[in-house]
Amino acid sequence: MWIDQRGSEILPQNECLRLLAVAAQSHDIGRLGVSTSTSPIIVPVNFAYHNAGVVCRIGPGTLADKATGSLVAFEVDRVDDERRSVWSVLLRGLARELSADELSGLGSQQFPVPLVRHAGDLVIFVRGDVITGRRFSVGDPAP
Amino acid sequence: MWIDQRGSEILPQNECLRLLAVAAQSHDIGRLGVSTSTSPIIVPVNFAYHNAGVVCRIGPGTLADKATGSLVAFEVDRVDDERRSVWSVLLRGLARELSADELSGLGSQQFPVPLVRHAGDLVIFVRGDVITGRRFSVGDPAP
Repeated sequence: MWIDQRGSEILPQNECLRLLAVAAQSHDIGRLGVSTSTSPIIVPVNFAYHNAGVVCRIGPGTLADKATGSLVAFEVDRVDDERRSVWSVLLRGLARELSADELSGLGSQQFPVPLVRHAGDLVIFVRGDVITGRRFSVGDPAP
Repeated sequence: MWIDQRGSEILPQNECLRLLAVAAQSHDIGRLGVSTSTSPIIVPVNFAYHNAGVVCRIGPGTLADKATGSLVAFEVDRVDDERRSVWSVLLRGLARELSADELSGLGSQQFPVPLVRHAGDLVIFVRGDVITGRRFSVGDPAP
């Protein structure tokens, strides 16, 4: 097990991918982070796990324009029931809009249920160029 | 009530601030988003609500260097028990390290319990320059 400077467990990539897939199947909410000329924007999204990346659905407009063709971040985390342990997976990579052909090629199992459905929505794929994750205990005493 | 193009309720600023304070008191986890030269980075953090902004604690290193003195994003959301309704608040603004004097001026109630405690941690304040929020129903049928 690898431990970082703060004592958190560094998750290997295959464990990160497994957690992403589990979270997607459980309909957990993830957060999409997109750069702007000032601060990033973070929005909650439903997502599907697909091909070592994630598929999510966003409305048309500024956020979609800034996301597609750009390097974006996608984060999902889960706190256990007793709030004693947290894992977090961060996926960073190129976002692009899925074509109609690619969309129809996705099984219905893999298609994310959108948080808010809207006729003009775009479906984007975020490629997992860099995938990192941590698992840590909450509130351990400082050394 | 104001409604956006996707049919979500646009939360007024005072409601956003109220939700931030409630989430902080409930020890909800928020996400800090920081720009880099490629994609943003998003990390889960505990936080306290303070002075129309949030206080959170992060480890020293690259993330802290990129966050302090920069415009960052902080997002917190909550899904209701039946997963039928979600609210999300996004705060964007300048992040800076709190001085020892400012830290001692914060009441213990306001000081966030860190997710992971570490002796070298920085405590940063994210000023709420822009505060926005939405509340929406999950999975409403597309129009």
